[in-house]
Amino acid sequence: MSFKRTSITSDPKAIASTPDALDTFVPYLMNRIARRYNVGVEDKVRSKGLNVPRLRVLAALAVEGSKSVNDLSVYAISEQSTISRLLDQMTQEGLVERKPNPNDNRSRVISLTPLGYETYQSTFPIMLAAEADMMQGFSPAERAMALEFLQRMLNNIRQSDI
Amino acid sequence: MSFKRTSITSDPKAIASTPDALDTFVPYLMNRIARRYNVGVEDKVRSKGLNVPRLRVLAALAVEGSKSVNDLSVYAISEQSTISRLLDQMTQEGLVERKPNPNDNRSRVISLTPLGYETYQSTFPIMLAAEADMMQGFSPAERAMALEFLQRMLNNIRQSDI
Repeated sequence: MSFKRTSITSDPKAIASTPDALDTFVPYLMNRIARRYNVGVEDKVRSKGLNVPRLRVLAALAVEGSKSVNDLSVYAISEQSTISRLLDQMTQEGLVERKPNPNDNRSRVISLTPLGYETYQSTFPIMLAAEADMMQGFSPAERAMALEFLQRMLNNIRQSDI
Repeated sequence: MSFKRTSITSDPKAIASTPDALDTFVPYLMNRIARRYNVGVEDKVRSKGLNVPRLRVLAALAVEGSKSVNDLSVYAISEQSTISRLLDQMTQEGLVERKPNPNDNRSRVISLTPLGYETYQSTFPIMLAAEADMMQGFSPAERAMALEFLQRMLNNIRQSDI
C-alpha cells in the first residue's frame, strides 16, 4: 500500500500505474486532517461571529505577541493580500489594533485589544478540545514524536524564518 | 515550550496565560505544513492551467478510481457545494466525464478522461517531489511512523468512512 517511491522514472506511465492508495501520501493525509480540524472548529465558533482566519489571527497574537503585518501573515497562515483586509475588519470589530512598534517608531505592529484577548480565551478551549480529539490514543511519548516529526517537516519546507 | 495541557481549568486567564509557542500545537503545525505544500505545488502547476482543487480531483480519480460526486468530495477534500461547479468546469476542459455507474444504472460516477489521466501523470512527479522535500532527513522507519501517526489522527476525526 504505497506510492512505490522507488519507481521514480522518466516514463510517466510507469509512475502513474503504481499508486494504489492516497492515504500513503503524507501531504494528502496532512490536508485531510487539517481540513477536518478547521471545519470542526469553525462549526463551533461560527455562532460567535468567528471563522478560521480570524481565529488564527487571535491565536497568533495571543501566543506570539504583537507582530508586524508581514510576520503575522506567516504566523496566522494567511496570504498577505488577504490579511490586510481581514485586519481592517477585525480592527472595526474591536478585536485588534494598530500600535507604534516599540522597537521602531516609524513602523507599526498589530496587537490584540482586551476584547480580542477575551475572545481568544473563550475559543482556546475549543481548539484544545479539537486537538485532543485528533490525538486520542496517542501516548505522551507518541505525541512528542508526532510534534517533532511535524516540526521537522515544517523546517524542511518553510520559506520564512518563522 | 508547550500549551501546558494540564492547565485546562474554568479560569480563562489561567488557560490563556500558559501557551508560549504555536509550534507545540499539532493542528497549527499541520495547517502550516499543508498550506506551504499546497502553495509550492500550485506555483509549479499554474502554467498548466491547474490549481490545488483540480489536482486533488485528478489524483483522487487516478489513484482511487471512478467515484460518485459524494465520495469524490471526501477524497478530493472539497466541499460538496464547490465540487459540482468544479466538476462542470473540468468536464468542459475535457479532464473528467460523467459515466453510468457500472454497479447501479440509475446513478452516475465521475471518471478521468485520457486527457485527465495524462494531466495527472504530468503533475504526479511534482507532488512526489514536494513530498520528498517535506520528508527530507526522515529514515524509512521514521517515514512509516509518521504515516501511521497521520492515519491514526485522520481516523480519530474523520466523519465519513473514507
